[in-house]
Amino acid sequence: MIATTRTRILEEAAKLFTEKGYETTSVQDIAQATGLSKAALYHHFRSKEEVLYEISLLALEGLIREGEKALSEPHPSLALLRFMEGHARFFEENHAFFVTMLQGIKSLSPEKREKTVALRDRHEANLRTILRRGIEAGVFRPVDVALAGRAVLSMLNWMIRWFRPGGPMRAEEVARGYYDLILRGLEREGA
Amino acid sequence: MIATTRTRILEEAAKLFTEKGYETTSVQDIAQATGLSKAALYHHFRSKEEVLYEISLLALEGLIREGEKALSEPHPSLALLRFMEGHARFFEENHAFFVTMLQGIKSLSPEKREKTVALRDRHEANLRTILRRGIEAGVFRPVDVALAGRAVLSMLNWMIRWFRPGGPMRAEEVARGYYDLILRGLEREGA
Repeated sequence: MIATTRTRILEEAAKLFTEKGYETTSVQDIAQATGLSKAALYHHFRSKEEVLYEISLLALEGLIREGEKALSEPHPSLALLRFMEGHARFFEENHAFFVTMLQGIKSLSPEKREKTVALRDRHEANLRTILRRGIEAGVFRPVDVALAGRAVLSMLNWMIRWFRPGGPMRAEEVARGYYDLILRGLEREGA
Repeated sequence: MIATTRTRILEEAAKLFTEKGYETTSVQDIAQATGLSKAALYHHFRSKEEVLYEISLLALEGLIREGEKALSEPHPSLALLRFMEGHARFFEENHAFFVTMLQGIKSLSPEKREKTVALRDRHEANLRTILRRGIEAGVFRPVDVALAGRAVLSMLNWMIRWFRPGGPMRAEEVARGYYDLILRGLEREGA
């Protein structure tokens, strides 16, 4: 893929937002990192918020695609595993975009925030569908799907706080560990 | 308890850090919220960072006390339940302190950061002890205690992103839901 100027701006901005935080990154910082003048940057994006918004949309659309691939897997346990692996892999491969999206939501204007929240809800709804199908198929216990979905996403999303790409473990491996834990539970059968 | 000036400063600062973020809150903002002059505030704390540090220490010491109460419960499953309830209850009752502590660590100087990380590690070590005892007693499966501990803390800590005190549900109830899920797992026995 040819990295267009627009793409380069988004990538440099996502890195800066992740390292320094959105509030403390200036348009000047983004222009400098991309090797552009502020005027050239404003040719591509009207504001810093628009950069944040586009990063968030791209991250969420990518995540949703992963979730939808998992949804097409007919066996509920395997679908859950694929969902968790896909979410974790996407996070690792698109680290700065993912972190920016998760941390940036509070800095968006109400209208843009509403649209990103709707995309997040769609991703979460896909997970709930997998859980619901598992319950209907008698594979999963009749748990509260909202609570269980939240538990799964909490484990995966909290990885932004401690997981660093390029370390000894792949994010997907962590996700598989969490999957085994949430599927089978801590308690020894018959204990 | 008589709210000393020092306590009032910490409380107002924690609220501001939670609402506006640490970086965007000024010493002037804290002084104003507490009804003090900047000079009076500097009489109590040498810097904004010192305020953040004291909030973080108080939050972590409180959390550790909750964890240690749980640790004194001999039955492993009950100890885990108490740990999760205690963590969630402390979070709800000390919302601004807890959120400030979790979000503020990256803004601390290396030396202060090291000390807060050591306290967090101590809290996590207490949880791992509970899990290890459960495995040794044959109550829990022989899971990776580091991974399982991380899963539990991820679920509880991610609550800072969505749970608001004063809503229809207590944080402890959410913790009990997570406990049931992590203990028994999603999979129906014999499925």
